[in-house]
Amino acid sequence: MTAVTEIEDERLALKVLSLVVEPGDWRYLALARQLGGVGLLRALHEDPSRHELLEAVAVRLDALDVDAELRRAEHTGQRFVTPLDEEWPTQLDALEGQRDPLIDRGGVPLGLWVRGPGRLDRLADSVAVVGSRSSTTYGEELAGDIAAELGHAAVPVVSGAAVGIDYAAHRGAVSAPGGVTVAVLAGGADRPYPPAHRRMIEHLAAEHLVVSEAPPGAAHTRIRFLVRNRLIAALARGTVIVEAAARSGALCTVSWATRLNRVVMAVPGPVTMATSIGTHQAIRNGVATLVTCGRDVLELVGPAGEHLTVEPRGPENPRDALTPNQRRVLDGVPVAEGAGADSIAYATGLAIGSVQRALTHLESVGLAVREGRGWHLTDAARA
Amino acid sequence: MTAVTEIEDERLALKVLSLVVEPGDWRYLALARQLGGVGLLRALHEDPSRHELLEAVAVRLDALDVDAELRRAEHTGQRFVTPLDEEWPTQLDALEGQRDPLIDRGGVPLGLWVRGPGRLDRLADSVAVVGSRSSTTYGEELAGDIAAELGHAAVPVVSGAAVGIDYAAHRGAVSAPGGVTVAVLAGGADRPYPPAHRRMIEHLAAEHLVVSEAPPGAAHTRIRFLVRNRLIAALARGTVIVEAAARSGALCTVSWATRLNRVVMAVPGPVTMATSIGTHQAIRNGVATLVTCGRDVLELVGPAGEHLTVEPRGPENPRDALTPNQRRVLDGVPVAEGAGADSIAYATGLAIGSVQRALTHLESVGLAVREGRGWHLTDAARA
Repeated sequence: MTAVTEIEDERLALKVLSLVVEPGDWRYLALARQLGGVGLLRALHEDPSRHELLEAVAVRLDALDVDAELRRAEHTGQRFVTPLDEEWPTQLDALEGQRDPLIDRGGVPLGLWVRGPGRLDRLADSVAVVGSRSSTTYGEELAGDIAAELGHAAVPVVSGAAVGIDYAAHRGAVSAPGGVTVAVLAGGADRPYPPAHRRMIEHLAAEHLVVSEAPPGAAHTRIRFLVRNRLIAALARGTVIVEAAARSGALCTVSWATRLNRVVMAVPGPVTMATSIGTHQAIRNGVATLVTCGRDVLELVGPAGEHLTVEPRGPENPRDALTPNQRRVLDGVPVAEGAGADSIAYATGLAIGSVQRALTHLESVGLAVREGRGWHLTDAARA
Repeated sequence: MTAVTEIEDERLALKVLSLVVEPGDWRYLALARQLGGVGLLRALHEDPSRHELLEAVAVRLDALDVDAELRRAEHTGQRFVTPLDEEWPTQLDALEGQRDPLIDRGGVPLGLWVRGPGRLDRLADSVAVVGSRSSTTYGEELAGDIAAELGHAAVPVVSGAAVGIDYAAHRGAVSAPGGVTVAVLAGGADRPYPPAHRRMIEHLAAEHLVVSEAPPGAAHTRIRFLVRNRLIAALARGTVIVEAAARSGALCTVSWATRLNRVVMAVPGPVTMATSIGTHQAIRNGVATLVTCGRDVLELVGPAGEHLTVEPRGPENPRDALTPNQRRVLDGVPVAEGAGADSIAYATGLAIGSVQRALTHLESVGLAVREGRGWHLTDAARA
């Protein structure tokens, strides 16, 4: 391979830079946006010493066997998708100029390392389903159900392949016919993490998508998980947190989704469980909208009017079939004892004649009965 | 007693009218506000036939043994508190002109029939705690806990004495030292309903307050429950729904509280339980604010700044005691394998010297350890 300083191809330049620039280090990402990948490589070559930023990466680049690294990527089936490619998910461009002040990371990635037959440019309608690694059965079942409903609706599910909610979300999406899911990893896409999820991640790499900002072989570090969360939030149109304790990493994804004006949703749970503290806080503080199922999510993120939530109603009630007058008379019959038609007429403000007609009807449909001192409600009417 | 048509005392006039005017029948309540109780009684006497409204009540009044009814009230220890009395809870005046279109009821009551040593004019800071009669242990425990916390804070708890959440709320308030609670009944205050709660209601009548818009002896009808809910909402500064199925009567209280611009709060629960459908809907639709405990409620309804909720935090974390640089280095150590100080320096963007100093410190506090090929995270750091 020719010296990297002689690279003229912008895509190749970005790919090479991605081998040495730490994910989400916005200083380099901004420089690459400004100078272009070719321009940044040239600046590294020409006078790296004029800035310690440049020097750090130049040193790293000198030490690297770029050819070997690129071969490694090829062997592990990873392609590098840049903003210049048709497959680029343009929703990531919203990260331009965006930084998380706590971790001092952010910005548009140089590109993404990708495994799998899926296409990144088909994720514009995707939804992220994330949550606690210390999840409960309650949360895992919900995450799985929500992801499956999204899968049925052909909405891709983005998550982080972690244990707990992430795992349940990927599984749920895969379980739906035609469901699509994307695992965004913090380390190299060829290094399944956590190791216990190797089989699932390899399955996703074979049938769906596994994506990382970090180059092949990169280790998983805590900072890279936090930086990775920005990609989950930025890829998806909306983010659902299913369970999150007070310090959960899922709340980092939420703060990225909020920063990017994406739809943020949270599932409530028993207030007695620590795993719902984070979701309840997000709802209470107005950061997230409460959702209880996949349809709720689709209503909030789907194209307008396409997925209208049917408000749940109680069971059918014989009361519904009554005329307004009949209902009024029924409501005027005492719940605990009998009453004469005159007393009911008084309570309802209706004429005695129409009360009597209504009572006859209520008796015929089994809602009222005449016994002893007067009219009574039946058990059916009390239900 | 003199003929009711010769009554000159406004308080007495309102009391007599309350024996024959159906609770919440806004037409009469508006007339009484306009003409005064004395004026309305006089109109009934002078020419009841000029309006069927007047005629209906005049007929009823003629048939009534007013003296006997008032003696009955006295025997059962009921006093009648009117807007003219110092004890009147002026927050009820907000009901002026307010009607629920579904049930066509509303308005300021003529007065309230009251049992118990409490005072109605001390309820300005009260909170209503209401919910499903088909409650679960989860909801009942929460309602009890919230009411007890309100009781501890000397905030009166208003509810409807029904089975389920109402019962738990009254019990919780009573359990707190100095706790005050008010049961608002749909029928006569001397007719405990439901019968199974007779003991509790009699206890509240002896130590707290039992209140009704309906006169002594009045039966409990469904319409009166709905009309009673407006008083619960209007008496309280805020209403908390703890559990409510899709058609719960508690949602009627919520719609009254909303109409009166009161604070509406709802407790979430497992989305898999029907008893949380109503509360989740109210939160999702923005009608209610999510609350999880008594402190949340106090923060929303208490005097500004008096009851600030402490945001729950996760457990103490050794990470919290680190300097920003030390934390950054910790975050740069791979989670699954070891790394040299140089690789960590690269990942963190820090100088090698400060990375080495930080690693030494992390080792001393048990967060990192040097083994084999490089630095590793300890189990404590992974927690």
